[in-house]
Amino acid sequence: MKIGFIGFGALNSTLASKIKKHQLMTSSEERSIKTIKAIEVSNIEIIDSFESLSKNSDLLIVSTSPASSIAISQKYGKLCKGIYLDLNNISPKTSIEVSNNVNNFVDAAIIGSIENNPILYLSGKNAFKLKFLNQFIPVKIISDKIGDASRLKLLRSIYTKNLSLVLIEAFDVAKEYGLENELLDTIAITEGEKFKAKAISRINNTKKNSKRKTEELFEIIEYFNESDLEVTKSSYDKLKKLI
Amino acid sequence: MKIGFIGFGALNSTLASKIKKHQLMTSSEERSIKTIKAIEVSNIEIIDSFESLSKNSDLLIVSTSPASSIAISQKYGKLCKGIYLDLNNISPKTSIEVSNNVNNFVDAAIIGSIENNPILYLSGKNAFKLKFLNQFIPVKIISDKIGDASRLKLLRSIYTKNLSLVLIEAFDVAKEYGLENELLDTIAITEGEKFKAKAISRINNTKKNSKRKTEELFEIIEYFNESDLEVTKSSYDKLKKLI
Repeated sequence: MKIGFIGFGALNSTLASKIKKHQLMTSSEERSIKTIKAIEVSNIEIIDSFESLSKNSDLLIVSTSPASSIAISQKYGKLCKGIYLDLNNISPKTSIEVSNNVNNFVDAAIIGSIENNPILYLSGKNAFKLKFLNQFIPVKIISDKIGDASRLKLLRSIYTKNLSLVLIEAFDVAKEYGLENELLDTIAITEGEKFKAKAISRINNTKKNSKRKTEELFEIIEYFNESDLEVTKSSYDKLKKLI
Repeated sequence: MKIGFIGFGALNSTLASKIKKHQLMTSSEERSIKTIKAIEVSNIEIIDSFESLSKNSDLLIVSTSPASSIAISQKYGKLCKGIYLDLNNISPKTSIEVSNNVNNFVDAAIIGSIENNPILYLSGKNAFKLKFLNQFIPVKIISDKIGDASRLKLLRSIYTKNLSLVLIEAFDVAKEYGLENELLDTIAITEGEKFKAKAISRINNTKKNSKRKTEELFEIIEYFNESDLEVTKSSYDKLKKLI
């Protein structure tokens, strides 16, 4: 199968390094020097333009940035007669919009970090055609509905983002009594020995990226606006104050 | 050492079965038939009255019910010249009140369930005298301040109770899309394989005991009323609706 990559950052380049026995291609058209170097090192085929890459791919894998998803689908979507897989972290709404711009869309969500053996969740009528990727990265097909994979990622975020705010709240109160270390120790008794390091990294990561995470929480609340999200809303309020 | 037990429910009877090489005693005074049977099976010494038990104990371990802590300390506290250890799940305020009724108080919190190797957290000036218990149950002495051990348990509850409400919120939204199982699966990718069963048990347990848990959350909010607990407050509001 001819597999074309649009975007060659951490995700796509790691993916390319995992996929064997297929013809892998990308383009260096208007790419940064850094990206071109990454492409050269990877030993995959370099095509003149993304236009001809799109035309020649049985599977087009897009991982650029969420903000560029729609524009890229408008530019290259109809050129690709094969499957169009968008790995950007986009909302279910954007997924549906992208799917309207392309021929054979598959909705996707990467869960877990790319360094740590993540799982590729897929949904949509064409998802079953990508089962073969399971040889290279764990693949789970959840439904034939476009939007389900990206919805699942948002749902997961309800848990992870709220958890970080709960940790911050408990940690900050404990600090007032000088018991913050003991607090993490006592939670680790039931949550496992890795809990402590993970909790500290979650707290720091959330505080450091509070602006971006506030935006992401806003997107969640907006998307699920008919659901009961009262804890999530107070997490959002709390996080906004940390910016 | 002469160790007297007031109360012989799951906690004290398990503790009695773990402690070796010391003289263990309790009283069957006004006890239920069930408790008397448990005492007889345990093979520990039976004293006529709790009064004489208290007078003769170098260490008095009280595990009855949180509501009875103060009354018991008033009745037997001054009779015991040894150490008075209250294992009831009481608030830091109650701990201080109990400590005023007894001679040598040690503040305590059992973290983890008694069946699963819990840890005994201790605080107070006399806590170091109970280090020897570490041969029988893991003991951690956190400070010489009465109230710290029970405060730590409340702080831990901020985390565990909020976590349950976060799980309920994410799970209920996922259910609207038929993705609740997939949600738990995706979280388990980073939280470990035991996550799923634990999450389901937390959700069910919280829903089943919503009344008691609402009262416990209220106590936390009241106790830490000068701290920023906005996420906890919305968890409380959400939980109240589940009663």
